[in-house]
Amino acid sequence: MTKRYLEDFAVGQTFGSGRLRIDKERIKTFAAEFDPQPFHLDDDARDSNARDSIFRGLAASGWHTGAITMRLLVESELKRAGGIVGTGFDEFRWPRPVRPGYELRVESEVLEVRSSKSRPARG
Amino acid sequence: MTKRYLEDFAVGQTFGSGRLRIDKERIKTFAAEFDPQPFHLDDDARDSNARDSIFRGLAASGWHTGAITMRLLVESELKRAGGIVGTGFDEFRWPRPVRPGYELRVESEVLEVRSSKSRPARG
Repeated sequence: MTKRYLEDFAVGQTFGSGRLRIDKERIKTFAAEFDPQPFHLDDDARDSNARDSIFRGLAASGWHTGAITMRLLVESELKRAGGIVGTGFDEFRWPRPVRPGYELRVESEVLEVRSSKSRPARG
Repeated sequence: MTKRYLEDFAVGQTFGSGRLRIDKERIKTFAAEFDPQPFHLDDDARDSNARDSIFRGLAASGWHTGAITMRLLVESELKRAGGIVGTGFDEFRWPRPVRPGYELRVESEVLEVRSSKSRPARG
């Protein structure tokens, strides 16, 4: 698919993504490396750390779901020339726990189109 | 170390972390799974995709550095009872690229202490 440049974007455009299923074993191995807390590691019925936590059961690390979101975005129809790179978020929310077996997908919408102040050829 | 409860926190407290070194091979494997873009995958001098990108060389995915930050925070002196869980960020920035071999550490500071409106025993 053709890459999109600054002039190809317009307010209101939307882009869809495919779907990725989040796997129970990957939830645990991701957490073991990056977010080793019981509610991301342990769903053993004999050890109720996950069930007694604020999540009431095994849930994916928010960094895992964020990373999967990035994968979906990179492979979505957005196809931004120069790549999908950001310097941060003004408003970022994890509204609900992501459980083993959930399928994730991304919808993106162009809210504003503007040139970079320091590099007007970029946006 | 003892876990800290709501009443143990006060504005101005700071908590340090250990250090984690970010490895070149892990930058590439993380990116292959979650953020497959040239500037996170490729530092081969024969293929200049990374060097010609906005990063001017291999840089870690922001999701990778975020995840490492979480690991440092979980193992830091913060030790929040109930775990380190958040619903999002109001201001989140990736100010500079993270290169292979960089060591990361986290400093956290308590800016405000307040009870949850819906569950006053939490905060």
